[in-house]
Amino acid sequence: MPTLVIANKCYSSWSLRPWLLMKQLGVAFDEISIPLDLPDTKEKVLKHSPAGKVPILIDGDVTVWESISIMEYIGEAYGVPVWPADRKARAMARSIAAEMHAGFLALRSACPMNLGKKYASRDRSQAVAQDVTRFSEIVREARQRFGAGGTFLFGAFSAADAMYAPLATRLDTYSITLDTTTRAYVDAILSLPTFQEWRSAALKEEWIVPADEVEEDAIENYRKAA
Amino acid sequence: MPTLVIANKCYSSWSLRPWLLMKQLGVAFDEISIPLDLPDTKEKVLKHSPAGKVPILIDGDVTVWESISIMEYIGEAYGVPVWPADRKARAMARSIAAEMHAGFLALRSACPMNLGKKYASRDRSQAVAQDVTRFSEIVREARQRFGAGGTFLFGAFSAADAMYAPLATRLDTYSITLDTTTRAYVDAILSLPTFQEWRSAALKEEWIVPADEVEEDAIENYRKAA
Repeated sequence: MPTLVIANKCYSSWSLRPWLLMKQLGVAFDEISIPLDLPDTKEKVLKHSPAGKVPILIDGDVTVWESISIMEYIGEAYGVPVWPADRKARAMARSIAAEMHAGFLALRSACPMNLGKKYASRDRSQAVAQDVTRFSEIVREARQRFGAGGTFLFGAFSAADAMYAPLATRLDTYSITLDTTTRAYVDAILSLPTFQEWRSAALKEEWIVPADEVEEDAIENYRKAA
Repeated sequence: MPTLVIANKCYSSWSLRPWLLMKQLGVAFDEISIPLDLPDTKEKVLKHSPAGKVPILIDGDVTVWESISIMEYIGEAYGVPVWPADRKARAMARSIAAEMHAGFLALRSACPMNLGKKYASRDRSQAVAQDVTRFSEIVREARQRFGAGGTFLFGAFSAADAMYAPLATRLDTYSITLDTTTRAYVDAILSLPTFQEWRSAALKEEWIVPADEVEEDAIENYRKAA
């Protein structure tokens, strides 16, 4: 059974991506959790991968790092449908997954993933607004062209959804206004039983990462309530 | 025949990646060039892809963007060996390609790709030095474990080399000191006939992108000399 090395479930958006995909596709795995921002975090991560970042997948004598390459590996090694079967859909799915991997920097920086809180809506920078607009464009295009068979970007859940899942949580956490199609997609992600499983575990964590607690006016503190 | 939409060959590191891979693998394609930073650049790019960024591959009714997904597409659609055949090598190749895709930000920011110039060595920030060190680690590990069959990271040229080729040009352009193994790898990239073809075309371009001309003390100006 492969082992997935991840960080805090409350904050580690990169960890969520392959975790969610493997759960959705029924690929069993063990987990190792290395909490972020502690004195020995770096040292612990480097024991598993010289790149020094989570997530890392260890499968026998193969080590894979970076969520996008872990996803490709899972598809090849376990024969599961990581990407849509249709070649046009698959081309778009891989393109938007890569676009997520190196993009949406304004939104990611202003609104860190934080599953423990909910904040009121507020004015955001133009750069953040552009990221939200681009995300909505992606959702509308994918859903319209390829989404008929289900509630996800390409119908059935795929690696593209796993890549955008942390973004969906951010839009919810920071109460960002969305059009109906995008809101429905965000809700489809948030209501996944696998995501709920992740979120429940996140709310039981006790670690606080100050760098990811960017606003003071939380309207909900799920962790206190839990 | 597919069409690859790219930007200036002198400056566009992202454009170089799929161009070089397709040339190396013998996949024929047409090129459309959209120069960077002109008033109509954005509009022209958006005509080809809603993501608004080059490179873009158009293959009949399929549009693919982001270099890393173009590479996966090429492998699937044209049956060419984009990645190493060995599964352990392939896992590492995809991991370091993804690491490049979203990483090495300090080096990329301080040392933009600029094939028209060469600069003298100078002191660099610690963040840039760390990026250089990580690149050297990658080269040494890949070459030692998987490089026996050739001069590239995994022996034969693969998508991983295409991803790191622009970084190789930067290390040369900015005269960054390298260990012997890394220097030999950089030279292997720079002496590829396909790369020389790209570079020759770059030196014939007349566009200047001020944002990518970051230093004043060039010791070589290849474009003036050309």
